[in-house]
Amino acid sequence: MSQDWRLGDLAAAVGGRVEGDPDRRVCGVATLDAAGTDDLSFLTNPRYRDALAGSRAGAILVGPDAGITGRDLLVAPDPYLALAEILGRIHPAERPAPGISPDARLAATAVVGRDVAIAPFAVIGDGTRLGDRVAVGAGAVIGGGSTVGDDSILHPRVVLYPGTSVGSRCILHAGVVLGGDGFGFATSKGAHKKVPQLGRVVVEDDVEIGANSTIDRGTLGETTIGRGTKIDNLVMVAHGVVIGPHGLLAAQSGIAGSTRIGSHVMMGGQAGAAGHLRIGDRVAVAAKAAVFSDVDDRAFIAGIPAVEHRAWKRSLALVKMLPDLRSRLRALEERLASLEAPGAAAKGDR
Amino acid sequence: MSQDWRLGDLAAAVGGRVEGDPDRRVCGVATLDAAGTDDLSFLTNPRYRDALAGSRAGAILVGPDAGITGRDLLVAPDPYLALAEILGRIHPAERPAPGISPDARLAATAVVGRDVAIAPFAVIGDGTRLGDRVAVGAGAVIGGGSTVGDDSILHPRVVLYPGTSVGSRCILHAGVVLGGDGFGFATSKGAHKKVPQLGRVVVEDDVEIGANSTIDRGTLGETTIGRGTKIDNLVMVAHGVVIGPHGLLAAQSGIAGSTRIGSHVMMGGQAGAAGHLRIGDRVAVAAKAAVFSDVDDRAFIAGIPAVEHRAWKRSLALVKMLPDLRSRLRALEERLASLEAPGAAAKGDR
Amino acid sequence: MSQDWRLGDLAAAVGGRVEGDPDRRVCGVATLDAAGTDDLSFLTNPRYRDALAGSRAGAILVGPDAGITGRDLLVAPDPYLALAEILGRIHPAERPAPGISPDARLAATAVVGRDVAIAPFAVIGDGTRLGDRVAVGAGAVIGGGSTVGDDSILHPRVVLYPGTSVGSRCILHAGVVLGGDGFGFATSKGAHKKVPQLGRVVVEDDVEIGANSTIDRGTLGETTIGRGTKIDNLVMVAHGVVIGPHGLLAAQSGIAGSTRIGSHVMMGGQAGAAGHLRIGDRVAVAAKAAVFSDVDDRAFIAGIPAVEHRAWKRSLALVKMLPDLRSRLRALEERLASLEAPGAAAKGDR
Repeated sequence: MSQDWRLGDLAAAVGGRVEGDPDRRVCGVATLDAAGTDDLSFLTNPRYRDALAGSRAGAILVGPDAGITGRDLLVAPDPYLALAEILGRIHPAERPAPGISPDARLAATAVVGRDVAIAPFAVIGDGTRLGDRVAVGAGAVIGGGSTVGDDSILHPRVVLYPGTSVGSRCILHAGVVLGGDGFGFATSKGAHKKVPQLGRVVVEDDVEIGANSTIDRGTLGETTIGRGTKIDNLVMVAHGVVIGPHGLLAAQSGIAGSTRIGSHVMMGGQAGAAGHLRIGDRVAVAAKAAVFSDVDDRAFIAGIPAVEHRAWKRSLALVKMLPDLRSRLRALEERLASLEAPGAAAKGDR
Repeated sequence: MSQDWRLGDLAAAVGGRVEGDPDRRVCGVATLDAAGTDDLSFLTNPRYRDALAGSRAGAILVGPDAGITGRDLLVAPDPYLALAEILGRIHPAERPAPGISPDARLAATAVVGRDVAIAPFAVIGDGTRLGDRVAVGAGAVIGGGSTVGDDSILHPRVVLYPGTSVGSRCILHAGVVLGGDGFGFATSKGAHKKVPQLGRVVVEDDVEIGANSTIDRGTLGETTIGRGTKIDNLVMVAHGVVIGPHGLLAAQSGIAGSTRIGSHVMMGGQAGAAGHLRIGDRVAVAAKAAVFSDVDDRAFIAGIPAVEHRAWKRSLALVKMLPDLRSRLRALEERLASLEAPGAAAKGDR
Repeated sequence: MSQDWRLGDLAAAVGGRVEGDPDRRVCGVATLDAAGTDDLSFLTNPRYRDALAGSRAGAILVGPDAGITGRDLLVAPDPYLALAEILGRIHPAERPAPGISPDARLAATAVVGRDVAIAPFAVIGDGTRLGDRVAVGAGAVIGGGSTVGDDSILHPRVVLYPGTSVGSRCILHAGVVLGGDGFGFATSKGAHKKVPQLGRVVVEDDVEIGANSTIDRGTLGETTIGRGTKIDNLVMVAHGVVIGPHGLLAAQSGIAGSTRIGSHVMMGGQAGAAGHLRIGDRVAVAAKAAVFSDVDDRAFIAGIPAVEHRAWKRSLALVKMLPDLRSRLRALEERLASLEAPGAAAKGDR
């Protein structure tokens, strides 16, 4: 009934090979615990190796040198990447059926491409342009003059402030807000005067942004999210930030205003960067770290304030040693006092 | 006119007793500052004891051994619990009147129970099942195939992605997003390929989730919020996390992917846990802590990285002592140098 | 065609002066990189000084003693404040055209002022009062009994729970939630019983709140945001908090329940404060800090737990010195051992 896939074909599709029976057929993909005999499962993280013995999975996707015997294996050079490809093949993403709900409100001057899907209670402003096959979820609001490229998906309740630009093949999850005013105030005699925020947000192609994340418009220029960058939930990107291509920002991380981030930068969960910094290419910032100064290319940093990761580890180790250092200091003081005491040298001499 | 309650009856209802006049009648509950002579007030936190003298409250709810005289007191073994019970009795929660707004959009295949209340601009997808007395707020979006148990309340603008399961008597506050895609990408030649997120979110009975919090669907399996767990605002729970029953997650805390949390676990505000961890039962994580490794049952941990709370306090104390340690070290160096100097031992000998 | 402004007139408007040609005319304001010859640019942060040489800007707004020659300059005592004023003059904020969308739903008992603008799919509850020129964005939900003062703007999808009070000239960005239930539970035999949350949120005049921030109602009293306070995105203010006038709360900061904050307090990004604290006037809390105890007026604090900023810097410096302290300690131990060794004093004596 349901479609099935030959293990050997899947292996070929992901540049891998089969150990065992290449004619083994699987109908789906499941975790080791949940897999049935018709399922392909996977072991991409050695932490879960214990679950392997009890798994009923028909075949297992593993990396090279997994050292597993007695199972039909799909061995892939990068098993997590292979998993992504196989899942996409076996469970292709469903897209909403094309059509514009009569309960959506499109401005007369909005221009929409072919096969768009616009859900009830979406509101689309003047002069907006939506590419082909764009999907706009229920209750999403697209401000006037915004553009959304082909094949992008806006989940329910996304808000684009006027003038926002979203590229092609982007995914914006529910509750994302792009283009809110930056946090800019000039303080005079104790009162905070709003600095008008006149720029916009530009999200390049192939960007994904998680639920309830917010990206503010630039004060005058643009806040830019580089192509291929992936942003998790509840992330804050402030006004005027530029994030290079292929970044990864984990949940609840935040970047303050005007900071420029290179390509392939990773921010761990709950990490933060202060404003007006330059963070180089291929920098990795550990979870919870606070970046308070510029960062060179390829640095791996951690801590508050963030320092080179090894330095951070060393500091932690030394702090752990403090009780020992203190007792050694105390012992030295006593030994020295006894050396200094009248007659001490003489005693030492005996 | 307004209803009133006899102090003795309230005491009986909460397993407490009256010191003073059990026939004292109260009409409402208010803080010490705001209470009038008809109000019951409460002293559940000793920090506010100073406000007691000036309070006009007709009676005061306190714990045992409060040492207060000259007032009509309702003495309860757990006064905060008694407050919860008395407030529920005097100010019962209002629920929206049953009825389905003509401005809501229900799929023809949605099944709704008795006395549901569905507000304008709510959108309810194919094959969704809502239990009896479920309330769906304005602009909420319930994806196809989701279920919501009896007596649950979805406040305005909640989004459930397709296939989400919410138990009975749950409260989801405005802006909550359940079931967004997990943050899963396989990186190949510098580009991040999306790992399809095919699982779902399961929220068990009696769970409350605060405004704008987000819980992602599992990659293949479920993200589970155990029964009775309470989650504050702006909390992030990532894909594949399992939280046991009766957890408490304070605001802005976050749990990374696949971490499993036992029962009765407390996460302080802005605390975080890394992915793929096991956190035992009855663990308490202090505010702002970062959990980077597995945690045993009943541990109380703090710091970044989180360690046993006492060890964290000791480290802080030792770091504070560093100026002292350094000057003692300097003194030792000087004393030793003078001992080592030519003639020093002789001098020490005098 | 487009309007232009005389540099001398702009200088007069902001209490500044011109160095160079006061008759120079500008059409807009742009960053140093983006400015054309008709634009005024600005140098308010010395970090960007390098961009000055290549800028085509017709004139530059600077502070006193900028030391720039060969340019037409608008010299203002506080150039960032002057920028705010000039931007407001050259690019006045656009407000939505007055009018109530036929797709909005107002309760019959709602009272609205003159020239309000209410967008599609907004829902406005019983007994709500909106002042003159209030703007309510698409999909915003205003609970019954709420009030919004003159000239306030609610961006799309803002939710006010019933009974919320918002002052005049406030700006609430998309996704803001005011008045959700506070996180209050009394635990009995391991289960968390909800403490009914019966208070409300009061936002005074001239407050701005960033996208997806949340402010909970008081348990019984009010959560108050003082006049002129500016709150960034994804900020959490818990039940019963009182924030004095003219505060600044940067993104992702959070204040736990019942904490009282004085006037002109600044919280850095991702900073947090525990509950039931008193934080004085004009306190500055560094980014990422965790305030775990009361804070005196005018303190500048940092770290986890937060301490006086200079003490925090000193601790960091001392931790950095630990490798040095440890090796000095080791050296002392060796030297002392050699002094203590038989014959050591004698050797020292030679």
